[in-house]
Amino acid sequence: MRLLHTADWHIGRRLNGFDLADCQWHAFEQLEQLALAEKVDGIVIAGDLFDRKAPAEDSVKMLNAMLQQLNLKDRLPIYAISGNHDSAVRLATGSPWFSATQFYMTTTLAQAIEPVELKDTQLFLLPYFELFEVQAFFKRSDLTDIVDAFNAIVLAMQKKFDPRKHHILVAHFFASGSSTSDSETKLTVGGLGAIPIQALASFDDVWLGHLHNHHALATDQARYSGSLLKFSLSEVKQNKGVWITDTQTLQHDFHNLTPLHDVIELTDSFEHLTGSDRPQLDDSETFVGINLTDIKPIPNVMARLRELYPHIISLNRVHGFQQDVQLHQTNLQQLDPLTLLTDFYENLAQENLSPQQLKWATAALTQAQKESNA
Amino acid sequence: MRLLHTADWHIGRRLNGFDLADCQWHAFEQLEQLALAEKVDGIVIAGDLFDRKAPAEDSVKMLNAMLQQLNLKDRLPIYAISGNHDSAVRLATGSPWFSATQFYMTTTLAQAIEPVELKDTQLFLLPYFELFEVQAFFKRSDLTDIVDAFNAIVLAMQKKFDPRKHHILVAHFFASGSSTSDSETKLTVGGLGAIPIQALASFDDVWLGHLHNHHALATDQARYSGSLLKFSLSEVKQNKGVWITDTQTLQHDFHNLTPLHDVIELTDSFEHLTGSDRPQLDDSETFVGINLTDIKPIPNVMARLRELYPHIISLNRVHGFQQDVQLHQTNLQQLDPLTLLTDFYENLAQENLSPQQLKWATAALTQAQKESNA
Repeated sequence: MRLLHTADWHIGRRLNGFDLADCQWHAFEQLEQLALAEKVDGIVIAGDLFDRKAPAEDSVKMLNAMLQQLNLKDRLPIYAISGNHDSAVRLATGSPWFSATQFYMTTTLAQAIEPVELKDTQLFLLPYFELFEVQAFFKRSDLTDIVDAFNAIVLAMQKKFDPRKHHILVAHFFASGSSTSDSETKLTVGGLGAIPIQALASFDDVWLGHLHNHHALATDQARYSGSLLKFSLSEVKQNKGVWITDTQTLQHDFHNLTPLHDVIELTDSFEHLTGSDRPQLDDSETFVGINLTDIKPIPNVMARLRELYPHIISLNRVHGFQQDVQLHQTNLQQLDPLTLLTDFYENLAQENLSPQQLKWATAALTQAQKESNA
Repeated sequence: MRLLHTADWHIGRRLNGFDLADCQWHAFEQLEQLALAEKVDGIVIAGDLFDRKAPAEDSVKMLNAMLQQLNLKDRLPIYAISGNHDSAVRLATGSPWFSATQFYMTTTLAQAIEPVELKDTQLFLLPYFELFEVQAFFKRSDLTDIVDAFNAIVLAMQKKFDPRKHHILVAHFFASGSSTSDSETKLTVGGLGAIPIQALASFDDVWLGHLHNHHALATDQARYSGSLLKFSLSEVKQNKGVWITDTQTLQHDFHNLTPLHDVIELTDSFEHLTGSDRPQLDDSETFVGINLTDIKPIPNVMARLRELYPHIISLNRVHGFQQDVQLHQTNLQQLDPLTLLTDFYENLAQENLSPQQLKWATAALTQAQKESNA
């Protein structure tokens, strides 16, 4: 059988304030067309369908429409698990009715240890879990380490292993050895603790969600699908897409998706970024992270850049405003304010104050001195 | 066919801070047992399944379990609509999958005008609606009045009428002629505006949700089921329950439910309420609204009453602290503070200050005078 492996849809997510709904729908449509064109036998969604545990109505509406489209209209089986961004309880709404049309929305450990039986494969759908849930489920308070807890789950799964079939685990966690990006926050990645790759050895293959880069894991035994979209500047260089895997041969093919609006990073001078030979955007709604190489202050910089790059998601200084200022090794407390100010400016801007600037600075400092004496 | 008509479950609702989950589950179980014992052919839920548009996880879990129990375990058809307290979008989650097991969760006007075909009856399931939804659905901006909007909906339904069957409307609105109670706030009742009973004439019967008193409507053409529980002191005297109606004979039988913890109102003196011959509660968790007939201040009154009545949902004064104080027709500004205070006390408590009280009052006023002069 050939299954499409995706994860981390994060419906409801925003990118530095910008709504991503159109981008997410566009990516979904490509995924759907690919699934139909490739005649896959089902869709695996490895968690984080929503971006928030209490998603907005619009997000609920969108995900409902997507799942309905795949399962009821396209008649594609769905094998989904809840991720750490999802509310397992909310995501389970309606799920007892779904299995009639081969839609498995798995949100509990009890469901996880019962494999979905495919022709040549047993699919174990393990939702994101917390330590206390494993303790409660197995009634074992001695499971105080996440790896022990995971091993207990695997042991329960192994009891159901059919030796004539492949055993594939679908899960949502941080597999150690993976590299992370900014859009999975430290808290998120650290939420569960890492599962070492060795703990996955019982399975023929492991299909993961959680990390947004499909290259995150450098092993052939397990892989992340990554997200459908770039969710941060740290993902600028990643290609996004989905895996299609043959469950018998375990051959994996990655299929790229084309974003509706790409996320790019521009590192350049203000002059060049606003000049006639400035970089051309694919479309005006491209999300742009700008790193200015300029050192001097630029009045009204954001507004002027937004005229040319309407969707700026970040604005940083590569040099100047970010670098540490190296003050002279003088005793700072003994310097008069004007010297301090001129030294600071010269360090920052790598040039002297102009006569006019010096005049303004002197007047301002004199005035301040007067007021503090009053 | 015999259908059970209920509404206004308000899962997630609290009663003056007290959790009602146990009470709601208890009422649900009675409803379920009644449905099974009476071998009804289905359950009609006329809106307000949840108490809030964004229900808490626990509420979601509870309603999911109830619907699953009725439809999947007991194999009872469910005919439900969203009410003004529900989020139509959230309540619709999973609904495209539900109809396979005769579970109709109707949340849109498009669904409302397509009858559910029963053997002898066409059931029109009309969710709570707002004016702008009707305008958008019929593409008629001239529908600026809620009654006109409702008539347009009825007209669309009539086009589907099968003359060989009865036509029953299930809806969630304020039918004019109804009387209201405190637990449907003015805003809620007023949200949609009233639909006059005459506008319901096309239907053989109308089964409503929205008002919590099943006696609210004084007509035989339409009826509220009321809520399963008392949600406020104004409902103290109401019996709560569900209708079971024969769709062919249109005979209606009201079946009372017994609350896990009743809501009662006690109007009495503090002395009697705390004495040895005090009223006995059915159970210690009975929700009690207390109206004290006392006039004088009672130190620590709430804490002392709570020892005997742990679930006090309100505490009022029938006389004393609530009555308007009739001060003498003297020019108040010319009275000295001590006279003002003694007059006030005498009006309120209907007796003079004791010598000790007078001493305290004089000392306090002297001190206050000193401090304001300092």
